[in-house]
Amino acid sequence: MNYPQSFIDLVECFKRLPGIGSKSAERLAYHVLSMDKEYVQEFSKVLSHFQDNIHYCQKCGHICENNICEICQDETRDQSTICVVESPKDVFAMEKVKEYHGLYHVLHGTISMIDGKTIEDLNINTLFDRIDDQVKEVIIATNPTREGETTALFLAKLLSKKNVTVTRIANGLPIGSNIDYADELTLLKSLEGRKKI
Amino acid sequence: MNYPQSFIDLVECFKRLPGIGSKSAERLAYHVLSMDKEYVQEFSKVLSHFQDNIHYCQKCGHICENNICEICQDETRDQSTICVVESPKDVFAMEKVKEYHGLYHVLHGTISMIDGKTIEDLNINTLFDRIDDQVKEVIIATNPTREGETTALFLAKLLSKKNVTVTRIANGLPIGSNIDYADELTLLKSLEGRKKI
Repeated sequence: MNYPQSFIDLVECFKRLPGIGSKSAERLAYHVLSMDKEYVQEFSKVLSHFQDNIHYCQKCGHICENNICEICQDETRDQSTICVVESPKDVFAMEKVKEYHGLYHVLHGTISMIDGKTIEDLNINTLFDRIDDQVKEVIIATNPTREGETTALFLAKLLSKKNVTVTRIANGLPIGSNIDYADELTLLKSLEGRKKI
Repeated sequence: MNYPQSFIDLVECFKRLPGIGSKSAERLAYHVLSMDKEYVQEFSKVLSHFQDNIHYCQKCGHICENNICEICQDETRDQSTICVVESPKDVFAMEKVKEYHGLYHVLHGTISMIDGKTIEDLNINTLFDRIDDQVKEVIIATNPTREGETTALFLAKLLSKKNVTVTRIANGLPIGSNIDYADELTLLKSLEGRKKI
């Protein structure tokens, strides 16, 4: 005997989400069955309108509910610095620090040989359009992974033609970590980036 | 800066599902953003009709799309045996074995002190209504956990008044396991349940 068709359909929907396999999808479907009807209807409605309500900012590529995001609209922010990140998640992470008051630019990915993604697949043209006389510094804050580093180097090369300072966020030991648990590369970067105290 | 409201709404919906915390919910919401619009609309639709399409069988409590499930409708199945399980998941697990051809009865839970669930909260009345002269054996196949065992004992006591044989599925070492990794209780049950070969 098989699951009822509606059950299979919902399991298939859940399985399309990342990190959810067959067993988890079944567990989620069973849970939905026991949820308050009101919640399930709300979930369905939110999901239905989600993609229509969320847009990418036409200036920086960050997610927002209007054409231009809150950060780009905010004229009190430092207009001379642009921090380039891989995804909107990184913008929220940076904002949590509350120390950076410049603008952002979201690439929506990295150069990736495996996925066949080149520099042209990234949100990069609008970045070059944004770099005018007002912009003094571009901070490249892609992840310190192989793909992130490749993208950073590529971007730095392209930006070298422009009249801006290009910087890269520092690598080293995370706060609260142990030196004996750190990998060799992190430790090497931590030594190379040492500062006088 | 905060996430857009529609984003927060979807994250909250995902967080209501079991095993999905804030970080996972955000990751899922980002994924939904990048999904094909068609898939998202289908997901929303499936979700919206799910609870209306899935019913519990009026006889045995198993999930189905009609009032009576496939198994209860199937007259070729052995009508003299009822296998009592905790949830519809267990019915599908049992059916995979392809060796049991009797009927089922789904309790929808167990007696649980922690959750304050008593025998009255289980789908038990319909079970007693089903036990007529035709039924010869009731196999209690609740999980071999504290709650499952309690429920099994309770049920066995209640069923002792009826003219049926009440059996419990066997405990012991799972096939392919190692004796030195087995816990003491499983090993004890395995010894107690030994058979002549």
